[in-house]
Amino acid sequence: MSLKGKRMAFLIGPAFQDEEGTEPKKYLVSKGAEVVYVGPQKTVYRGKYGRAKVRVDKTFGEVMPSEFDAVVIPGGSAPEHLRVEEAAVNFVRGFMKLDRPLAAICHGPQMLISADSLKGRTITCYQGIRDDVKLAGANYVDEPVVVDRNLITSRKPSDIPMFNEAIYAALKPKD
Amino acid sequence: MSLKGKRMAFLIGPAFQDEEGTEPKKYLVSKGAEVVYVGPQKTVYRGKYGRAKVRVDKTFGEVMPSEFDAVVIPGGSAPEHLRVEEAAVNFVRGFMKLDRPLAAICHGPQMLISADSLKGRTITCYQGIRDDVKLAGANYVDEPVVVDRNLITSRKPSDIPMFNEAIYAALKPKD
Repeated sequence: MSLKGKRMAFLIGPAFQDEEGTEPKKYLVSKGAEVVYVGPQKTVYRGKYGRAKVRVDKTFGEVMPSEFDAVVIPGGSAPEHLRVEEAAVNFVRGFMKLDRPLAAICHGPQMLISADSLKGRTITCYQGIRDDVKLAGANYVDEPVVVDRNLITSRKPSDIPMFNEAIYAALKPKD
Repeated sequence: MSLKGKRMAFLIGPAFQDEEGTEPKKYLVSKGAEVVYVGPQKTVYRGKYGRAKVRVDKTFGEVMPSEFDAVVIPGGSAPEHLRVEEAAVNFVRGFMKLDRPLAAICHGPQMLISADSLKGRTITCYQGIRDDVKLAGANYVDEPVVVDRNLITSRKPSDIPMFNEAIYAALKPKD
């Protein structure tokens, strides 16, 4: 089943985790979705390992949460840059109100902490930030992918295949 | 005035911030202090930018908090590795009970979050983790160096000179 007609935002910034910033896009585009890279500036960001580059399609000032059927937040150092940008945090907070699929991997949940979106939610993340998500009110579990209502979370690059499938499952037309 | 006879632990791990892991050591050794690199394994760790290498002198299993007059926690990605090591977190928690100078820069305060040592304390840190230290109960301020009783904190590599001076001031013999 195709994701044709589904429009997704990938939130991107400096030093994103290379594979997390690009592999889910390839997968989702191959399923028919449209993927838009949204970032703080209209520029090209490099992955933290120099294995990938991403061009920002739209800045946070140019988009509204309601334009997107789903949001993906890759990890690396990008979330620590995005979470100090008020427009980026407001975008995530606004998107959470829509109750549409939001997928975050590795350090991606740092954005959810800053958008005050984790209270009472069950999630996973990179283990190095597990204490932070707990303090933000989340129930942390150590699993490759965790789905709690609209939130889809994974821990690290090797979880990407299961992360991709969970995003697809959340978006595909229901039988 | 010399720091002769003062013994300091630098908590080190993979991908430490290169200058934060090495410049304060050079300064403190030049003042007469003894600096011991304490890490999770007896190995050589590289800085995240490849500009520095550090050999671990002692593992956390080989030291006691009371052996040290002060502790320094450099930033980079090392604190995210150390904070998931129970022995490292216990070391910090134990050292905090001694009320001796503990200095953390950049991502260093992530260790203090995991050691539950920030409630009611005024600190600074890398801005990308400011929301995490607030959720851990700290009063976050954006200053080059902040001293609150035994805690000395700074934000980033360019704060190192002021960070060094604050550590020296906390350790030097009183007039």
